[in-house]
Amino acid sequence: MREFRIGIAGLGTVAQGVLGIIAKNGSEIAHRSGVELVVGRIASRSAKPEVDLLGAEFSTNLDDLLQDESLDVLLELIGGEDVAHDFIRKALDLGRPVVTANKAVVAAHGDQLFGANQPVSLRFEAAVAGAIPVIQAIRESLVANRFEHVVGIINGTCNYILTAMRDEGRSFEDALSTAQELGYAEADPTFDVGGIDAAHKLTILLALAFDASFDFSSVHVEGITGITAEDISYADELGYRIKHVGIARRTDKGLEARAHPALIPEDQLLANVNGVLNAVLVKTDAAGNTLFSGPGAGSWATGSAVLADVVATCQEPDAGVRQNSRSDVQRPAILPVEETTCAHYLRIPTRDEPGVFASVAETLSNHGISIEAAIQKQPATTQDIVSIVIVTQPVLESEAAAAVREVEQLDQVVGQVARIRIETL
Amino acid sequence: MREFRIGIAGLGTVAQGVLGIIAKNGSEIAHRSGVELVVGRIASRSAKPEVDLLGAEFSTNLDDLLQDESLDVLLELIGGEDVAHDFIRKALDLGRPVVTANKAVVAAHGDQLFGANQPVSLRFEAAVAGAIPVIQAIRESLVANRFEHVVGIINGTCNYILTAMRDEGRSFEDALSTAQELGYAEADPTFDVGGIDAAHKLTILLALAFDASFDFSSVHVEGITGITAEDISYADELGYRIKHVGIARRTDKGLEARAHPALIPEDQLLANVNGVLNAVLVKTDAAGNTLFSGPGAGSWATGSAVLADVVATCQEPDAGVRQNSRSDVQRPAILPVEETTCAHYLRIPTRDEPGVFASVAETLSNHGISIEAAIQKQPATTQDIVSIVIVTQPVLESEAAAAVREVEQLDQVVGQVARIRIETL
Repeated sequence: MREFRIGIAGLGTVAQGVLGIIAKNGSEIAHRSGVELVVGRIASRSAKPEVDLLGAEFSTNLDDLLQDESLDVLLELIGGEDVAHDFIRKALDLGRPVVTANKAVVAAHGDQLFGANQPVSLRFEAAVAGAIPVIQAIRESLVANRFEHVVGIINGTCNYILTAMRDEGRSFEDALSTAQELGYAEADPTFDVGGIDAAHKLTILLALAFDASFDFSSVHVEGITGITAEDISYADELGYRIKHVGIARRTDKGLEARAHPALIPEDQLLANVNGVLNAVLVKTDAAGNTLFSGPGAGSWATGSAVLADVVATCQEPDAGVRQNSRSDVQRPAILPVEETTCAHYLRIPTRDEPGVFASVAETLSNHGISIEAAIQKQPATTQDIVSIVIVTQPVLESEAAAAVREVEQLDQVVGQVARIRIETL
Repeated sequence: MREFRIGIAGLGTVAQGVLGIIAKNGSEIAHRSGVELVVGRIASRSAKPEVDLLGAEFSTNLDDLLQDESLDVLLELIGGEDVAHDFIRKALDLGRPVVTANKAVVAAHGDQLFGANQPVSLRFEAAVAGAIPVIQAIRESLVANRFEHVVGIINGTCNYILTAMRDEGRSFEDALSTAQELGYAEADPTFDVGGIDAAHKLTILLALAFDASFDFSSVHVEGITGITAEDISYADELGYRIKHVGIARRTDKGLEARAHPALIPEDQLLANVNGVLNAVLVKTDAAGNTLFSGPGAGSWATGSAVLADVVATCQEPDAGVRQNSRSDVQRPAILPVEETTCAHYLRIPTRDEPGVFASVAETLSNHGISIEAAIQKQPATTQDIVSIVIVTQPVLESEAAAAVREVEQLDQVVGQVARIRIETL
């Protein structure tokens, strides 16, 4: 049987998943694909850990991988941005096919990496939504489709926290510390709860579905740190779940690209994707709504996606670069977030005085904002603070923002208005 | 740009979807894939309909397609079994790559069609779950995984009917006639509501996930005609949804392969796949639980899957036959349904007399069946018939069947016991 020799850069959780899967399922993979995967060499800048390297050579110098010409494919599983980018760039320049799980590098440098003169493949299925084959679905399974939108729950940390807040009535801080204890959130969680990680992945989905540039800086990013248990409870009452989503959408005015919390109708399948699970909903003209769900992270789940790319590379070492490999194409423009249109959930803390709802409604009306639904309850405490909750009709982002600023200036309004977009899908 | 010439056999809804998509998205497909799809020839045994054939030659003789050597791929979209099988066989014998949407032919003749001497590809993504790329997911995306089970809602007609029965409290007959009016069910619905169509698709999923034979006759098949509104309502009360599913599962004793109605816990994503939608849940060792959902039928949705296969064929005309192409492999055995183990839902119609629950419980206990949950309500009518509803612990199929037969013989039991398997996934 033909051998296919793998070189691995990095020896963290994903690399260990790859090694674990090959050790367990290597013969099954060989039976199915007709090739025997051999790990020829591993390089990691830190010392060799207590991991079965399956007989591979080990060194702490990444260049050793680049110089080992017996390797058929190089796996970039270093993580981070600069060193990983440098390694991928050098490998491709040497004509070596690469598989990476690195969303940050693809999101930031995709346009250069997939440049027109790229003769070998760079695959990155594991970079978005872990084990879920959404990259392949968009590029291959839906190749005959025109895309309308891609909406994904693509950060497991956010989804775990929001699920725990709803199911257990916990605060953001409380849910975050449990996520950290369980290993679902980093010690510094900013990257996840701030929405950056989701925005990286969205950049990739956007580029693939709409032939757009890999332009991370054009994605509007918000995290979930401002979401309160109260918002989740009101959303429930209104028939929604709050999820952190990445949204890429074609509109008449241009492409929308945003990562932020959103209210999703509870009868949508996407609204019922809970815990650390990820899911991506794709709407296209021919296939309609397709949804792909599964583990978005984890050693073996991510390793599964990496190895799918390895087998694909073995079968087509010069492919996987077709899309986004043309420099002669006019890329569609990404719309500034101010020009996007959404319905909104507003939670307005007010003093419990007569006429306050009328004042709020008038202010919204002055900005052309219609009210679709509203909740106003008696104050639960003796502080006489009452929340007015309003669901608006769709409204231009800039108008929504201006209206909220004005509402916050009203005498009876005490403190900041919570504003969360609604995505009816 | 390179041309890729398509020949189409059959001109029904799927073929019309393929033509519609090429007309609308042909240039986008060309941009992405680097090939221009040209429909060179269409043959259909019935007269030419009022459809834009995109300039293709038309004839009523299928042999014209086989003889036209300008065609790069042949699409079998005839439907049915014998003529379609004959066409595919002849095309492959002539060394022509084929794409088909025909689940019945693949399920019945897969072993021969994918025989070891097959030099060209036969692709069939559209044969299972329409637009959902589950074939590609199993064969490529999850190539590094060992499969534990595949559970699919793979018949849209059944899912529409069961959803309507639950959401609108309708009877099976009533929901079926609406399905027929809406075009979701055939005039003769036996094939769908009897479970045959789902069993065809399950045969294919089983063969791919477990390297099993394409052995339709070994799949245990039950339909949904016996499901009542009462069962759906009791299932709801117990925290389940009733879905018609195809199940392929690896056990220590062998493979399970069955298509039948089942109670699915309501918090499972699969339980929330409603209406005509299909979904396939795949559990594997590395990727964990992944779920793929979308339209399982329809002209354009199925056409989307066919065209994904066409583009894949263009890029790898001799591939797509790797798996299941080896005759030297020991295929795993399929377990007779009597040897499978499931928890059960039992609805037992009884006279409202003292001691009836004790008699039922004793009978079950004599067969080693433990009760997990039970509901017994006052009779709603003056007929003094009361339903005892029982959820059992997992039990061997043959024991469950024997126990039910014995329960039906009890003096206080009036009529048939409804028995539905429970899949906790």
